[in-house]
Amino acid sequence: MDLEAAVENYAERDWRTGVEGTVRFALVGIGWWTTDVAIPAIESTELCRTTTLVSSSAEKGRRVAAEHDVDHAITYDEFHDGAAADAYDAIYVATPNAYHLEYAETAAELGKAVLCEKPMEATVERAERLVETCEEHDVPLMVAYRMQTDPSVRRARRLIEDGVLGEPVQVYGNNSQPLLEMIPDPDQWRLDPELSGYGTSVMDLGIYPINTARYLLDRDPVAVQAWLTSSHEAFSDVPDERSSMLLRFEGDVHAVSTSSQRAQRDSQLKVTGTEGQIDLRPAFGGQCTLTVTRGDVTVELSDESMDAEREMELEFDYFADRVLGGDPIGPDGRHGLTDMRVIEAIHEADRTGGVVEP
Amino acid sequence: MDLEAAVENYAERDWRTGVEGTVRFALVGIGWWTTDVAIPAIESTELCRTTTLVSSSAEKGRRVAAEHDVDHAITYDEFHDGAAADAYDAIYVATPNAYHLEYAETAAELGKAVLCEKPMEATVERAERLVETCEEHDVPLMVAYRMQTDPSVRRARRLIEDGVLGEPVQVYGNNSQPLLEMIPDPDQWRLDPELSGYGTSVMDLGIYPINTARYLLDRDPVAVQAWLTSSHEAFSDVPDERSSMLLRFEGDVHAVSTSSQRAQRDSQLKVTGTEGQIDLRPAFGGQCTLTVTRGDVTVELSDESMDAEREMELEFDYFADRVLGGDPIGPDGRHGLTDMRVIEAIHEADRTGGVVEP
Repeated sequence: MDLEAAVENYAERDWRTGVEGTVRFALVGIGWWTTDVAIPAIESTELCRTTTLVSSSAEKGRRVAAEHDVDHAITYDEFHDGAAADAYDAIYVATPNAYHLEYAETAAELGKAVLCEKPMEATVERAERLVETCEEHDVPLMVAYRMQTDPSVRRARRLIEDGVLGEPVQVYGNNSQPLLEMIPDPDQWRLDPELSGYGTSVMDLGIYPINTARYLLDRDPVAVQAWLTSSHEAFSDVPDERSSMLLRFEGDVHAVSTSSQRAQRDSQLKVTGTEGQIDLRPAFGGQCTLTVTRGDVTVELSDESMDAEREMELEFDYFADRVLGGDPIGPDGRHGLTDMRVIEAIHEADRTGGVVEP
Repeated sequence: MDLEAAVENYAERDWRTGVEGTVRFALVGIGWWTTDVAIPAIESTELCRTTTLVSSSAEKGRRVAAEHDVDHAITYDEFHDGAAADAYDAIYVATPNAYHLEYAETAAELGKAVLCEKPMEATVERAERLVETCEEHDVPLMVAYRMQTDPSVRRARRLIEDGVLGEPVQVYGNNSQPLLEMIPDPDQWRLDPELSGYGTSVMDLGIYPINTARYLLDRDPVAVQAWLTSSHEAFSDVPDERSSMLLRFEGDVHAVSTSSQRAQRDSQLKVTGTEGQIDLRPAFGGQCTLTVTRGDVTVELSDESMDAEREMELEFDYFADRVLGGDPIGPDGRHGLTDMRVIEAIHEADRTGGVVEP
C-alpha cells in the first residue's frame, strides 16, 4: 500500500467513467431514511436530482416537497397511473420490503431505471419477479448496497485482491442495534413478516455482513448453518430478534456472523488471512476506521467526512454514472438475488438444524 | 464503574484469602512455555517456588535446572518412581495433552496437588479418569485457564454481573496464530492426534473463547454447530486447521467463534448485551485493552505490565492460595471436563452437520 497515495486519494471515486449528465429521481416511500438521509445526499451528488416524491399521503408528500424544493409530489396510486412520469428518469424504492416489486414493475413499464433498497423484496420468489420484470423491460436495476461504494470497503477489497492478507481464512461480521429505542413502535413494519419477509435481524441487519463479505472476497457462500431466536414480546411475529450463522464461502473461507435488533449498537467486519487482517469498525454506517495488520505492523485509515449521508451520495452518483453511460452495474438484480437465496437458506437452516446450500 | 477505583486497583488480586506459605512445584514437561514463561512467572510469585524439573532428558533437565537455580532435575521414569517427592507439594503439567493423565495419576498417588494445562487431556474419557483419580486421592486439581485470573477478564465479568451490558445477547471470540511460523516443524505434537486428541485449532486455540465466555457469562453451552476444515498438508492428520462454530449458551445467548492455526495472529472476545458491550482485545495473551461501551459512552482500560508471564504469575499464585488454604478452586477438574465435552461435541457436530448437545 502506497501510504501517501492512500491518504491523498482515500475517498476517490475510482468507479467514475467520466460520463456527464443528470439522472432525475422519483423517491418512492418518504420515511425518515428518505427525508433525513436520501434527499440531502442527492442534493450533494454530481449527477442526481430529486424531482418527484411518491408517498401514501398527498398532504405529507406536498409538505416534504415544499421543505426540500422538490417539483412534484404524487400518491402511490398516481405513480401507478404514470403521473409526472416525464419528470424523472429513475426511481429510488425505500418502502417496506414487500412493496418493492409493485413500484419496480410500474417503473419498468414506464422505462425508468430502478435503484431498490436492500433486501430486494420480502421473498426469493418476489425478488425473482422483480429482476425478471426489469430485464424484460430492459431497464437498469441496482440494489442499494451502499457499502460497495464506501471508500473504506473499496480500499479493503483492493488490499485483499492485492494479496495483503495472504489467502483469506476467516470472516467475522456483526450488525446490532436497539430497534425499539430507535423506533419505539412494536407495530412497525420491520416486525411484521407480511411486510418485512422472512424476518427482521437477518433481512435488515445481517444482510450487511453477508453482502459486504461477498464483495470483499469476490466469492459467494456455498453452505450455511444458523440459529435464530426471539424472546422479547415485540418480536413474537418474527423468528429472528437475534441471529447467528456460519457461512462457508467458495475456497473454504469460514464466516461467522451475528445480528440483533435488540442490542447495543455495534458493527464490525473483519477478514483474517494467512498473512494479515483487515478490520472495518464501525463497518456499516458512521465513520469507519479501516485497520490493516500484516504480521506485527498495523495501519489505520479513516475519513472524518464519511457518514450515512455521504455513503448515500456516493451510491446515488455511482448508480447515475452507470445509468447515464449504459454500463453494467456491480450490485445488480442477479447479485441481489444471491443474498435473498442466502437469507432464505439461513431461515431454512435454523428450522432444520442442518447445513443448507443456498 | 467507579473510574478512580478501577484505575487504582486494576490488577488487584481480588481472589487473595490472606493465607501465607509456599507451594513447591515440580514442573513436568520443559518445552519453551515452561522455560520461557512458567519458570520466570513462578520466580515472580508470592506463594510459589520451583524445586523440581521433570523431563524426558536427564541432561536437558540438569542444564535448565542449573540455568534457573532449581534444586532437582529428574526424568519421567524417576518421577513415576517417586524421586524427589519430598521436594515438591504440587505439579504443573505442561506436556502434550495425551500425557497429562499419567503424570496426574502419579502425583495423586503421591498426594501432590495438580495444576494441569488446558485442554485437560486428549479425550473426554481420559479427562474423566484424570478428574476421578484426583478425587479418589483427595488432591486439589486445577485446569490452567489463566484468563480466569487475568485482571481484564475478571473486571469484565464483574461488569457483566453488575448488569452494565443489560442482558447478554451475543458473544464473538477469535483466536488465530501462524503455528508453523512459530514452530516450523510439520511433525510437532499439536498436529498429531495421538498426542493432541480431537484436533488442533479447537483444542489449542478455540478453547480460550469457549472457556472465557463460560467464565464471563457464568453459564455453559447447551448446543453447538461447527465446521472444521484442513487444507495445508502439514494439517492432513487433524480435522481442524481452521474452525468455526455456533454455541448456544443457557439463557439464549448466541456465541460465534473462529480459530485457526494458520492465520494472522489475532484474538478478540466481545460480549454484546441489550444495553452495552465489552470487548477484550487482544483477548488471550499480551496486553489486553478492555473496552466498555454503554449507549454512546466508551471507556477503555489497559495495563501495560500485563503479558503472558504476568498472567501465569497470577494463575500460579491463585492456585497456591487455594491449595494452602484448602479452599475450592474455580477452574477445577469438573469445570474443565465441561470444555472437553463441548470440544468433543464440536467435532461431532462437524462430522454430522447437525446440532449437538454437549
